[in-house]
Amino acid sequence: MTRWTLSPDRIPSAWFNVAPHLSKPMDPPLHPGTREPVGPGDLAPLFPAALIEQEMSTEPWIDIPGEVLDILRLWRPTPLVRATRLEQALGTPARIYFKDESGSPAGSHKPNTAVPQAFYNAQEGIRRLATETGAGQWGTALAFACSQFDLDLQVYMVRASYEQKPYRRVAIQTWGGAVVPSPVDDPAHPGSLGAAISDAVRDCVAREDTHYALGSVLNHVLLHQTVIGLEAKEQLALAGERLPDVVIAPCGGGSNLGGIAFPFVSDADVRLLAVEPLSCPTLTQGRFEYDFGDTAGFTPLLPMYTLGHDFVPPSIHAGGLRYHGDSPLVSSLVRDGRMEAVAYPQGKVFEASVQFARTEGKIPAPECGHAIRATIDEALAAKETGEEKVILFNYCGHGFLDLSAYDDYLNGRLPDEQG
Amino acid sequence: MTRWTLSPDRIPSAWFNVAPHLSKPMDPPLHPGTREPVGPGDLAPLFPAALIEQEMSTEPWIDIPGEVLDILRLWRPTPLVRATRLEQALGTPARIYFKDESGSPAGSHKPNTAVPQAFYNAQEGIRRLATETGAGQWGTALAFACSQFDLDLQVYMVRASYEQKPYRRVAIQTWGGAVVPSPVDDPAHPGSLGAAISDAVRDCVAREDTHYALGSVLNHVLLHQTVIGLEAKEQLALAGERLPDVVIAPCGGGSNLGGIAFPFVSDADVRLLAVEPLSCPTLTQGRFEYDFGDTAGFTPLLPMYTLGHDFVPPSIHAGGLRYHGDSPLVSSLVRDGRMEAVAYPQGKVFEASVQFARTEGKIPAPECGHAIRATIDEALAAKETGEEKVILFNYCGHGFLDLSAYDDYLNGRLPDEQG
Repeated sequence: MTRWTLSPDRIPSAWFNVAPHLSKPMDPPLHPGTREPVGPGDLAPLFPAALIEQEMSTEPWIDIPGEVLDILRLWRPTPLVRATRLEQALGTPARIYFKDESGSPAGSHKPNTAVPQAFYNAQEGIRRLATETGAGQWGTALAFACSQFDLDLQVYMVRASYEQKPYRRVAIQTWGGAVVPSPVDDPAHPGSLGAAISDAVRDCVAREDTHYALGSVLNHVLLHQTVIGLEAKEQLALAGERLPDVVIAPCGGGSNLGGIAFPFVSDADVRLLAVEPLSCPTLTQGRFEYDFGDTAGFTPLLPMYTLGHDFVPPSIHAGGLRYHGDSPLVSSLVRDGRMEAVAYPQGKVFEASVQFARTEGKIPAPECGHAIRATIDEALAAKETGEEKVILFNYCGHGFLDLSAYDDYLNGRLPDEQG
Repeated sequence: MTRWTLSPDRIPSAWFNVAPHLSKPMDPPLHPGTREPVGPGDLAPLFPAALIEQEMSTEPWIDIPGEVLDILRLWRPTPLVRATRLEQALGTPARIYFKDESGSPAGSHKPNTAVPQAFYNAQEGIRRLATETGAGQWGTALAFACSQFDLDLQVYMVRASYEQKPYRRVAIQTWGGAVVPSPVDDPAHPGSLGAAISDAVRDCVAREDTHYALGSVLNHVLLHQTVIGLEAKEQLALAGERLPDVVIAPCGGGSNLGGIAFPFVSDADVRLLAVEPLSCPTLTQGRFEYDFGDTAGFTPLLPMYTLGHDFVPPSIHAGGLRYHGDSPLVSSLVRDGRMEAVAYPQGKVFEASVQFARTEGKIPAPECGHAIRATIDEALAAKETGEEKVILFNYCGHGFLDLSAYDDYLNGRLPDEQG
């Protein structure tokens, strides 16, 4: 057998909170004006109370509401797959497993947190959400989730993506979401994630009926993603494995990495590996310090690895990984040596993605390709040493909406990168 | 519970052959030159012996080779889902189930036959396949399958799709297939499926190492798709249902319809319903007679419903349903009254598809939307009568590569149709 499914009634009933497992407590976010620690009241205009409580919680487990489970069960538990064809092509003694998050309605792991965020907002009487999106993975996921709870949604989409990659914009609209190009006040500007966050926060603050929603970085977002790692742990046992030797995931803001890796944090022998683009090397070349989450400095200051909130990463196909900062939880684990990080140029990433497509049959999203690149390199290292290493990586999304990137790669049109 | 999975070891081990269940034997295909019945020798330049034998077999069950099962298990068995949110939105007492074929590597049901076709050709020592594709569903599926058996692939893609909808072309190339616009000898011609078939057959006949492969219409193709209905039958029992009252699928050449419906053909109380586009109404307005499979008259004459092999359907978004003829097996069941057919204009189809996306969360391919339209109408009829009808339909593919069609629908750009 090379694929392990679980019946929908085997979905995890609680999220795993990594906060109490850290070697030292997290430093608090600071108010952008006063630079004093932010309290729940400061966040209330943006988020519902339940999410603020989760953001600050040190409880080890947090129950998943039944209404959320009912929707997650539309596609969860997701399969765990052993990549035997890739192993054979590499001639490696390593056993490679991946958790396939591409079967969600939006085609990525993002709905795992979009659904509970929509639920808690609806429960609190909120009628409308505002958010930003870059290439559109998060915007589509939240549009799907809002359709399930009859919430209106306003998406501010980076203008360059809105105009040049219209497919995810159309998906947002198909699910009933409204989407406009950002920045809204400068039609000549190509836009940036930072500017789109500013637009969304401004919208939210101006309207009583509206909250803001974020698809990565924050503690509660990563908490919601831990269903990935919890299921994988159970499925690895079904596959006859004790624990993986290494868990690998791409890292932009950190949500899919945290989702698969955090449940293994107390298993000391399990290496945790973050993979980022060389063009936006937050963990590998950034500094750990307090910085803003957005370009304009509207958000609280977070303790994290950052390239500086005015850093503008070059345009790469893995739009989901172009973020100047990183999740404070992930940053903390990297700083303390519990998690490693590596960076790759996109040409090496697409080379790995095409090898994966031609062996395992699935075409990955460029973000996901970063994990595949690192997985292949780990497997080739195991070939050198003869080690029967067990590798687990997160297949965090499909590439059906990123095929123009493959077209560029296959036809030699990817820009040169230092690497 | 609203979703029923089966472990990969529960995949069907044999295909269901509908031929021995017909009320009278099929009329044979005729040679295009002599108009005499075609024998196995006539087909040997195009197909491997195992597929020719399946094409003519009246054995009730045909074993699926282990090498084929190993690849089908990458995504099969597929889930059966109860569409409770759609039921609630319609206020119907009907129970609606769908078989979700969208999780295959190519995103549709097509790999179910692409894999065995590639396998039998590789087993016979063939090194290369040639095929045609319209919008690209079949070309992508065969490219994936050829990558699994190290076969070269040449795809002739209808020029208009090649130029205007490049995503599936890129997917074919990502899996290692070669693709050229058709017709090859007239760069100014927008192309047609008939012309692309002619290009592929000509390529195949000219080269010893090359066979031809077809994605629908033929008996062996529909045979391979019966894993869909066989799994659905087992999963409906798990869901506590005896049998569906009606089985619904879109119909172009007939492969996904045959796949889900044939295993129910001997269950006399189960209605079988084919859904086609009003712009290409083969079963509802065509004639049952011998006709060519292609425009140029290269292929054998098949006994089928046809609009005439020179019929040119208008351009619609459900490219997979634009075929002048139909599977002889499906045609035979319609002629004999065992199967019904209905036709819809595409505006009504997209209306249903958007309702499905906003309730069940998944964005369907336009082909698939035809089945959803008919399902909704059956469910609304059940609401009128109060009948607790059980409806099963085939969710034969996702719409991630068809979002420009949704863009046209949502912005009022679909052309008017008679309906």
